[in-house]
Amino acid sequence: DDIRAYARNVVEKEIEKHAADGLGRVDYALASSGAFVVKHSEPYLVGKASNWVFLKSTKNGVHGDADKMLRPSFGEPGQCFPLKGSSGFVQIKLRTPIIPEAITLEHVAKSVAYDRRSAPKDCRVSGWLRAHDDLEVDTEKMFSLAEFTYDLEKSNAQTFDVLDSAVSGLVDTVRLDFTSNHGSASHTCIYRLRVHGHEPDAVSMMTMQLS
Amino acid sequence: DDIRAYARNVVEKEIEKHAADGLGRVDYALASSGAFVVKHSEPYLVGKASNWVFLKSTKNGVHGDADKMLRPSFGEPGQCFPLKGSSGFVQIKLRTPIIPEAITLEHVAKSVAYDRRSAPKDCRVSGWLRAHDDLEVDTEKMFSLAEFTYDLEKSNAQTFDVLDSAVSGLVDTVRLDFTSNHGSASHTCIYRLRVHGHEPDAVSMMTMQLS
Amino acid sequence: DDIRAYARNVVEKEIEKHAADGLGRVDYALASSGAFVVKHSEPYLVGKASNWVFLKSTKNGVHGDADKMLRPSFGEPGQCFPLKGSSGFVQIKLRTPIIPEAITLEHVAKSVAYDRRSAPKDCRVSGWLRAHDDLEVDTEKMFSLAEFTYDLEKSNAQTFDVLDSAVSGLVDTVRLDFTSNHGSASHTCIYRLRVHGHEPDAVSMMTMQLS
Ligand SMILES: [K+]
Ligand SMILES: [K+]
Ligand SMILES: [K+]
Repeated sequence: DDIRAYARNVVEKEIEKHAADGLGRVDYALASSGAFVVKHSEPYLVGKASNWVFLKSTKNGVHGDADKMLRPSFGEPGQCFPLKGSSGFVQIKLRTPIIPEAITLEHVAKSVAYDRRSAPKDCRVSGWLRAHDDLEVDTEKMFSLAEFTYDLEKSNAQTFDVLDSAVSGLVDTVRLDFTSNHGSASHTCIYRLRVHGHEPDAVSMMTMQLS
Repeated sequence: DDIRAYARNVVEKEIEKHAADGLGRVDYALASSGAFVVKHSEPYLVGKASNWVFLKSTKNGVHGDADKMLRPSFGEPGQCFPLKGSSGFVQIKLRTPIIPEAITLEHVAKSVAYDRRSAPKDCRVSGWLRAHDDLEVDTEKMFSLAEFTYDLEKSNAQTFDVLDSAVSGLVDTVRLDFTSNHGSASHTCIYRLRVHGHEPDAVSMMTMQLS
Repeated sequence: DDIRAYARNVVEKEIEKHAADGLGRVDYALASSGAFVVKHSEPYLVGKASNWVFLKSTKNGVHGDADKMLRPSFGEPGQCFPLKGSSGFVQIKLRTPIIPEAITLEHVAKSVAYDRRSAPKDCRVSGWLRAHDDLEVDTEKMFSLAEFTYDLEKSNAQTFDVLDSAVSGLVDTVRLDFTSNHGSASHTCIYRLRVHGHEPDAVSMMTMQLS
């Protein structure tokens, strides 16, 4: 009976987590929360059978489908945004300034994928606080948040802790640079990037301004 | 082995329920089934970062996004409709007339929410049968279906049984009135309202007409 | 402890499968992968409360909503395409030529369905390789892939192995014919059809051409 109760409890907890966006963790880069793609490297728009890539317009160099990278994929192949080549980047304005704690990079699950050579491999994530959307970033105020390798053999949503969150301050913009992928010469697909962390309270805001 | 079979059985049952719209219970207020929002209190459209609230048109006082309240949220923050202030209402025409049995009110899960002060708190649900869409309701034929408090500490989809279904008759219109929320002065978000019950068979229809 | 580890393992595996499109199996008929509906029998467009059926256009006899049959339903009633009568067909161009191994036909789960009389019953699936989209099929090159009965008492997504995959060759087009449904005189709803199999490697391609 004890074990049965345990089993039931494990099931409920895990399904609850699954139902809560898969990880049960707040994502400040979610499109429906107000986050959006600020810029990205050249998209890969040639030779796709589906027509969605051709029909969407582009604003300030951001493709109309780029926010697919900031939306749930619900386990469906194709719910991603393809960037040209094996290296590239995407830069995201978060919903609100946060102290970043972790980054999740998601690709499609092995069991339903046609081909996972387009998955990103070596990645680097940086972040900063952007005074105005149109100003260039002051690189001195830029934090290196995480460096990691997306591993095709692990779970399809892989979370990486921020290197040393003590060193990091408030950020409202995050940039993913990928320098390699898992074998595709033509393109790299980003299914979803999530940014976890916490909003600073009034006290910590004051401390930051004093220091 | 017995316990293993039990564990597997629990898992399968729970996932089946999860896959069946989360509760495994028929919802007569689901938009894709033909239900729709008839009217609602003033929407909260100011100061939202996302543009979806501005671009949708309004028909007969019903905002184009109001049916978000009658669609699945898939655990995603923002898949709701915001109403102004801490009290308000939404009135729904069901797919078909039913004998109501329970009401489910859903908000976003704690683990992925940015802020849950906009969740509704004290609620009252009533229902009636509306002869014609354009007629005013005959308040004598109105049933009080449920009174409840949405609890932020419980599961995000909370189901409340109809007070005394013996007293209730056939309804095709249901109205949720919320009189408080969990702390937001500006708005209250409704993620989803579901109405459970059963369609009357021919015999019970006749009994109702005779009585 | 052993049993607890076992329970946790079962849960994780099952949720992973659920999160991977429900079955954890590659689907070459998925719309977002490039597959599309080539033709279908007459759609059922009369007397539906929802307006989606009226507003979509038709191209070459294929209704704008026909690809609902090639998309996930996420357990939601109504996420299907209705065809007129109790018999009919749908013909699909796959994402890429494959050696077919199994077919999955999905309807809505019993627990959330209003009425399942519109579910297809007796079915036959055939496949062939189509040189050009505008040519008629050479019936000698047509393979009978599966014959089955969709059972309302079983799981809502039912998978049927290809009769004798040794006999079958490469196909890029698949056709579902249903000859009966579960009781509706007016229409039959197809929630989703999936086609499983594998892409031939270079060696097996050569063998096929030689034989
Ligand atoms: K996505
Ligand atoms: K919703
Ligand atoms: K579907």
